[in-house]
Amino acid sequence: MTSLVGHFIHGEHVAPQDGNLIDIHNPSTGAVCGQVEMASSALVQKAIDSAKAAYPAWRATPPAKRAQVMFRLKVLLEQHSDKICELISEEHGKVLHDAKGELQRGIENVEFACGMPQLLKGEHSKDVGPGIDAWSEFQPLGVVTGITPFNFPAMVPLWMWPSAIMCGNTFVLKPSEKDPSSALYIAALAAEAGLPPGVLNVVNGDKAAVDHLLEDPTIQAVSFVGSTPVAEAIYQKASANGKRCQALGGAKNHAIVMPDADVDNVVNALMGAAFGSCGERCMALSVVLAVGDEMGDTLRDRLSAQIETLKVGAGNDNSNDMGPLISAQHFDTVSGFIDSGVSQEADLVNDGRKLSVEGFEEGYFLGATLFDKVKPHMEIYQKEIFGPVLVMLRVPDMQTALELINEHEYGNGTCIFTRDGEAARFFIDQVQVGMVGVNVPLPVPVSYHSFGGWKRSLFGDLHAYGPDSVRFYTRRKAITQRWPSTNLREGSQFSFPSN
Amino acid sequence: MTSLVGHFIHGEHVAPQDGNLIDIHNPSTGAVCGQVEMASSALVQKAIDSAKAAYPAWRATPPAKRAQVMFRLKVLLEQHSDKICELISEEHGKVLHDAKGELQRGIENVEFACGMPQLLKGEHSKDVGPGIDAWSEFQPLGVVTGITPFNFPAMVPLWMWPSAIMCGNTFVLKPSEKDPSSALYIAALAAEAGLPPGVLNVVNGDKAAVDHLLEDPTIQAVSFVGSTPVAEAIYQKASANGKRCQALGGAKNHAIVMPDADVDNVVNALMGAAFGSCGERCMALSVVLAVGDEMGDTLRDRLSAQIETLKVGAGNDNSNDMGPLISAQHFDTVSGFIDSGVSQEADLVNDGRKLSVEGFEEGYFLGATLFDKVKPHMEIYQKEIFGPVLVMLRVPDMQTALELINEHEYGNGTCIFTRDGEAARFFIDQVQVGMVGVNVPLPVPVSYHSFGGWKRSLFGDLHAYGPDSVRFYTRRKAITQRWPSTNLREGSQFSFPSN
Amino acid sequence: MTSLVGHFIHGEHVAPQDGNLIDIHNPSTGAVCGQVEMASSALVQKAIDSAKAAYPAWRATPPAKRAQVMFRLKVLLEQHSDKICELISEEHGKVLHDAKGELQRGIENVEFACGMPQLLKGEHSKDVGPGIDAWSEFQPLGVVTGITPFNFPAMVPLWMWPSAIMCGNTFVLKPSEKDPSSALYIAALAAEAGLPPGVLNVVNGDKAAVDHLLEDPTIQAVSFVGSTPVAEAIYQKASANGKRCQALGGAKNHAIVMPDADVDNVVNALMGAAFGSCGERCMALSVVLAVGDEMGDTLRDRLSAQIETLKVGAGNDNSNDMGPLISAQHFDTVSGFIDSGVSQEADLVNDGRKLSVEGFEEGYFLGATLFDKVKPHMEIYQKEIFGPVLVMLRVPDMQTALELINEHEYGNGTCIFTRDGEAARFFIDQVQVGMVGVNVPLPVPVSYHSFGGWKRSLFGDLHAYGPDSVRFYTRRKAITQRWPSTNLREGSQFSFPSN
Amino acid sequence: MTSLVGHFIHGEHVAPQDGNLIDIHNPSTGAVCGQVEMASSALVQKAIDSAKAAYPAWRATPPAKRAQVMFRLKVLLEQHSDKICELISEEHGKVLHDAKGELQRGIENVEFACGMPQLLKGEHSKDVGPGIDAWSEFQPLGVVTGITPFNFPAMVPLWMWPSAIMCGNTFVLKPSEKDPSSALYIAALAAEAGLPPGVLNVVNGDKAAVDHLLEDPTIQAVSFVGSTPVAEAIYQKASANGKRCQALGGAKNHAIVMPDADVDNVVNALMGAAFGSCGERCMALSVVLAVGDEMGDTLRDRLSAQIETLKVGAGNDNSNDMGPLISAQHFDTVSGFIDSGVSQEADLVNDGRKLSVEGFEEGYFLGATLFDKVKPHMEIYQKEIFGPVLVMLRVPDMQTALELINEHEYGNGTCIFTRDGEAARFFIDQVQVGMVGVNVPLPVPVSYHSFGGWKRSLFGDLHAYGPDSVRFYTRRKAITQRWPSTNLREGSQFSFPSN
Repeated sequence: MTSLVGHFIHGEHVAPQDGNLIDIHNPSTGAVCGQVEMASSALVQKAIDSAKAAYPAWRATPPAKRAQVMFRLKVLLEQHSDKICELISEEHGKVLHDAKGELQRGIENVEFACGMPQLLKGEHSKDVGPGIDAWSEFQPLGVVTGITPFNFPAMVPLWMWPSAIMCGNTFVLKPSEKDPSSALYIAALAAEAGLPPGVLNVVNGDKAAVDHLLEDPTIQAVSFVGSTPVAEAIYQKASANGKRCQALGGAKNHAIVMPDADVDNVVNALMGAAFGSCGERCMALSVVLAVGDEMGDTLRDRLSAQIETLKVGAGNDNSNDMGPLISAQHFDTVSGFIDSGVSQEADLVNDGRKLSVEGFEEGYFLGATLFDKVKPHMEIYQKEIFGPVLVMLRVPDMQTALELINEHEYGNGTCIFTRDGEAARFFIDQVQVGMVGVNVPLPVPVSYHSFGGWKRSLFGDLHAYGPDSVRFYTRRKAITQRWPSTNLREGSQFSFPSN
Repeated sequence: MTSLVGHFIHGEHVAPQDGNLIDIHNPSTGAVCGQVEMASSALVQKAIDSAKAAYPAWRATPPAKRAQVMFRLKVLLEQHSDKICELISEEHGKVLHDAKGELQRGIENVEFACGMPQLLKGEHSKDVGPGIDAWSEFQPLGVVTGITPFNFPAMVPLWMWPSAIMCGNTFVLKPSEKDPSSALYIAALAAEAGLPPGVLNVVNGDKAAVDHLLEDPTIQAVSFVGSTPVAEAIYQKASANGKRCQALGGAKNHAIVMPDADVDNVVNALMGAAFGSCGERCMALSVVLAVGDEMGDTLRDRLSAQIETLKVGAGNDNSNDMGPLISAQHFDTVSGFIDSGVSQEADLVNDGRKLSVEGFEEGYFLGATLFDKVKPHMEIYQKEIFGPVLVMLRVPDMQTALELINEHEYGNGTCIFTRDGEAARFFIDQVQVGMVGVNVPLPVPVSYHSFGGWKRSLFGDLHAYGPDSVRFYTRRKAITQRWPSTNLREGSQFSFPSN
Repeated sequence: MTSLVGHFIHGEHVAPQDGNLIDIHNPSTGAVCGQVEMASSALVQKAIDSAKAAYPAWRATPPAKRAQVMFRLKVLLEQHSDKICELISEEHGKVLHDAKGELQRGIENVEFACGMPQLLKGEHSKDVGPGIDAWSEFQPLGVVTGITPFNFPAMVPLWMWPSAIMCGNTFVLKPSEKDPSSALYIAALAAEAGLPPGVLNVVNGDKAAVDHLLEDPTIQAVSFVGSTPVAEAIYQKASANGKRCQALGGAKNHAIVMPDADVDNVVNALMGAAFGSCGERCMALSVVLAVGDEMGDTLRDRLSAQIETLKVGAGNDNSNDMGPLISAQHFDTVSGFIDSGVSQEADLVNDGRKLSVEGFEEGYFLGATLFDKVKPHMEIYQKEIFGPVLVMLRVPDMQTALELINEHEYGNGTCIFTRDGEAARFFIDQVQVGMVGVNVPLPVPVSYHSFGGWKRSLFGDLHAYGPDSVRFYTRRKAITQRWPSTNLREGSQFSFPSN
Repeated sequence: MTSLVGHFIHGEHVAPQDGNLIDIHNPSTGAVCGQVEMASSALVQKAIDSAKAAYPAWRATPPAKRAQVMFRLKVLLEQHSDKICELISEEHGKVLHDAKGELQRGIENVEFACGMPQLLKGEHSKDVGPGIDAWSEFQPLGVVTGITPFNFPAMVPLWMWPSAIMCGNTFVLKPSEKDPSSALYIAALAAEAGLPPGVLNVVNGDKAAVDHLLEDPTIQAVSFVGSTPVAEAIYQKASANGKRCQALGGAKNHAIVMPDADVDNVVNALMGAAFGSCGERCMALSVVLAVGDEMGDTLRDRLSAQIETLKVGAGNDNSNDMGPLISAQHFDTVSGFIDSGVSQEADLVNDGRKLSVEGFEEGYFLGATLFDKVKPHMEIYQKEIFGPVLVMLRVPDMQTALELINEHEYGNGTCIFTRDGEAARFFIDQVQVGMVGVNVPLPVPVSYHSFGGWKRSLFGDLHAYGPDSVRFYTRRKAITQRWPSTNLREGSQFSFPSN
């Protein structure tokens, strides 16, 4: 039985109405598992209008009272986590334990949002001049929007709207049309947690819906996560329309493995960071820079052997390590990258194209792939593949490794494996990347820090979630106040009269 | 049926063991409703030992994981609020709706504690010198203790231990022996929420238990709330023993009523702030300074009339406005203050001594009492009464009012009623009091600010709960780090050798 | 004798070279007082290259050492203030005491920059997971640029580059070609204070220079202050080119005068705020909203009388209250607005067009102008005039006044005059304006707060100077670190062997 | 020619008056170089009264205006640094270059104080309830005092009073009677910088003066630096008298040298940290824990050889590495410790007792001394020596080293020398010491962090200078404000009346 996926507007599910439906596929089976409506312009407008109508009352609700919704939502998300993870796994394909990890990270953003009364504090200065005080208030923007990708259908929306609405904004979310159900499900939980109608709205749609959101004058800010070309286009359009925007794009995350690194650790870390979620993560480690040939040979052998033991299969079987890619189209793209690597004469150690999963022959499965002796000019090094393809380059020393990273177009995440304090400190200081790990392969900041890359991995001034999100979703209002002298205080006219 | 109240040590209730029991009275009936054991020195030591044993593992638990206990505790406190409020009302006497308010404020401190991962952040400076970094960490103290008063048996402990343990400390709580049950009940909920055994221990006891806690070298810090003489003694003893201490004492909170104030507001505000919880609050407004005789006459008439309509009775009847005093002894003390006022020729407008509550003739009920034309030298002005006695002084102008407040021994809370911006700002600036209200009669800071009086209302540097509690329950550790140059990074020995 | 104004690149003055000179006029006399070269593209590139070359060493200089330059610069600015103010007054026309005020505000930004070691602190979290620490560093962007307007030729550059370079960036400043000399003079003082060559460069130029800066890939961020159409264009272009941008535009600042306001205060405040610096300030108060006809009549009479006494004349005569407009062209524009007001039937109370200053007949002097009974549809209400023209509207109540402000295109500054706490608080809360004064006519935040308007008065996320500037001129780098277990610490191999 | 040293009260030098003079010795020569008056009780009171009188106006001076004094003071300190260092060197004995370093660190505290407008910001929360705002102000305490030691006669006072007065307090400083002149000289410079009379007062005196300060009810807070027994006594007395107190005491700072440490670095670092300023620093490294006998042997050889080359001599000869001890009495104490080490059978490698400095035979010179194979029970390990005596213990592993440090009475500073990230992180985490260095031998925090030890090295909640000093020298005032609804805003009565 396939589901029919609509929208969530003004606190209620809105079933598909006008028939512009597209299919949702289960990537593990290739079968259609649902249909989702692409919202008409009128429907997008309805969501915006709902958010606009809800804004004044929500803005006037004290932050500590808003937080009560978040506290309840955390409980509901934990109670319904199995259901949410099933939705994620069915539509996205990732294995249930991976979906669980995604949801857990999302819940941590809800926890962070619970602390907003503390985070919204402004700065107060007594006596900026004689008898003059000044302070700042961080006030909500109004109606804001989030446009989110397929790869973390539950988590990335939770990076955005909990913080946004806790700041007093109201929200229109447009999730990925490939796996929209978990975000809708969570929106309904938020309503159950007491969120007033209109504070959070979800519309499914395509580029027309996005354009409507980017052009509507009510929308004050846009948060986007996706590929770099789209991120850049959205940033430019939103900026041109006078909207605040943060647009997170693609990545090519390098790990430097120093000669003193603990090889067992490194291999385990790389396996998870390269092939977890089938490599469809903007924080996936997709490049290994082995310092020295000895380390290169060791890693090649160890990784290759580990890849052989990797269990690939359907997302709903928790014994699997890795599930399918998101779509047939994306399968072709990633396979094409492997072809390109071969044709450019990279050394293909493990070839994922050969994989077939028994009983799931129509699923979009591609096996874990390892290239060695990759060169910087090759397409598989230059481009973001977004699949289970790990490329290794061999470098003579750390300086060479650092230069490769700094010259690459992207600057999202990176990592060094070493035991040496000085190497780590030098790396942290010099690397032109926004999120840096030391012996941590996926340096995704925890929810009370902020997430963001550098260079062409992020367009905008402020990073996602955490403290930066408070600044992104608020405007500073600066107040300067003095009171003129008044007879009231001196008060002679009020002193005991008639005596 | 009376209860037998013991302790809570290492995650378990510890029933009375050695027979040193004292009675707990229900102040509404005067009847004994339970007995509580005064812990032996051995038992206090057992609690300290439990906390000490639990410390290393708890300190090493990441703050975000500690916070999960607080999130669950909030839910449990809300689920069990009726039961907790019954325990408060039975042993303390306050009306159920008042107990609910107390508990709510306590829960807000748990909410604040949920945000501790953000609040524990240290300061990081790159390049304090060439290649040298420095940062600070706010580390837990170890085992700390809280000694709490009868008047807020649930809330004041929640001011202390949630913040303390979220900072990584373990805790020994000694509640008031007059109404110990709610604190014990909540400790059991914390265990149910997942708090590891020994992180929070509760011992009931008398001065011997307190002395043990103040002398034991394991105890690193003491939080106390009670009367000023005891607070001062505890502060001196704890300080002499090298412990960090914050000791909150008594109060005499004045309200200035300016001639432009909204009288309806003022009368409503004063009734609640003076007589709520029978005046047994360190934030009770117990002095009115009426500016001008016109305001004095008006307030006298309006307050007197309102007092006549006040419904006084048993705590478990939610239709009552005010319950009994805590004990027969305290009833005598407060009545004695009224006698003193009369003998010093203050103008007794409403006399609470006449009250008798039908069916509760043995309860410790004293009616709301109003004195007018009180003079500064009178005992009822100088001393903290801690009962339902409101004294009014008439002053010719605000300056006189301000001087009275600033010359008084206490400096806990105060309030001005006015519509005038300048009067309010001047008052805020000049008044020597720690918590200031503008048209807010009980200016108790919300949980994400901090609570503390000035002058002899607080001994110590840092205030209770909120951001100050994070500093109180942690020590700053300052790290300065550089790494010597190393061959590893330059890495020549790993480069492709001459071939 | 007229001066020949060039540039300041790599720590040295660069004299005009290729002959593309434009005239600088003294607005008080209308005479040419100098010529300034419009930089060729090659010269702009040279400035960028100089900044790029200086960047690595400057970035590696510890912030506390960078601050020594700022400390010395403050001293030099104070020592040379007369000279700087002469340059300002000669080229801009503002009276010397007004130039002094401008410079003082600029120096305050240098003082703020001295405190940068404290402001650059990142957030450090111990134990974000077991044995894992995380922290953020706020790192410089690289080479950044500032494009500044004629109206505060010394102050606005000082809003930008001291903060930018203290964050570790290097800078290219393009001042207004109408009054470039004071910014150049100050750049030379910075070099004298010890700023290494290339850290601050100044190029004079026109749109070609600006375009070069906006297109050059080295430039990481753009700060702009000017008119709204240009601000918007620059924001869009910089954003499209992947640069961080904050672009401050125009204003139409309203003052609400409540019936309880202190009229003496109000009139004095309005005179200064409307006509100071000839109204050529983005924080000038150009609209009065008189609440009630009584207040309207009073203000009309009082303002009109004050305007009659205003002393208008040359900038170098300190006895004058107001100097000339910046240029003949701008004189025509402002005069045209007055014509428009008359033609749209606003009530012209004082007509500045009649003014002639004896001995300065060629100066660009326009007298203070007051319109009463202006209506919202009129051009003189809709548009920013940027001249000594004050328009008064009469409104029945505060709500009407508030709606006018909130519906206006601009949202830079605003002010309320009242004695009433509630009116002020409601105004602060509801008004859609970035900088709000309560009885403060020009609510320019002090240097340790931040400056920024809302709506079409500012494009960008972060405000100018103060704490926001630290965020604008830095990128967050998030580090997550763990160390693998190592034999070194356990250290058995180092223990006293078998003896 | 000897000087006659008095006091500095109400902006003026006060010459000795009543004849209670004690000698000041030049430690390099042993000669009397001056006499200083021990203030009578009346004189101490005069200083307190001066500070009290100056308080209201100084408190009302805007922080940014107060900061102007600090900016000017920094310039004056730099201009007069030679003179100040001469005074330090003459009375204390330290070599001029060491005095220069001390003064430099002191000046950095003045720089920090310049940033106080930013640091004094309170926390502002809009809408803590419906229409209710809350904020905190950090207000000065009133008159505070500082009691400072001989070993940093210029720097330690500058830790205290610049921050204290920038917070709005006024100050009474009691420097060490052994070397009072530099503090007095600097106080005069502060007056020259524009500090109003009475804001900073300096009284010289003995225990009677200290007792007066600790007992006087005007004094609100006490900062002390000295030995632990005195620190403890002062903390207890101040606390008993209701004063806020921070009292910094002694130290025994250990360095762990790991087997992977860079020996050249270590030896250089230890020489400076152990023998700089003749070991009379509370941050001196006085214990080396060599991990492994190989490192122990190496360090013994290398240190011993370096000690032989150390140049010891008069403070005014900049070619010297180390000067004399402070007094003949202290010389005997330190020599006695060496005797004790010998008698307890520690291995005396270099014996400083043999030293004689030609031409300065009466100076209090003691040579650099090294003990090897010291055991934990020995007095030279247990006690703070405060002289040029370095003791080395040999330990089998890091864990043993860590336990030694954590079991020691003191917890001021410590350091690890290693190249290993994990060892450093484990050390930082586990060590019970307030200031921790990684390859930094003297981990004195920079001025914008804070200084403080743990255990018996500091009594009090808050550390010295830096951000903690702002909290120490201020009280939190928490304001909660709402405004009652008022006719003014709704304003119907002001609307166009009957026409």
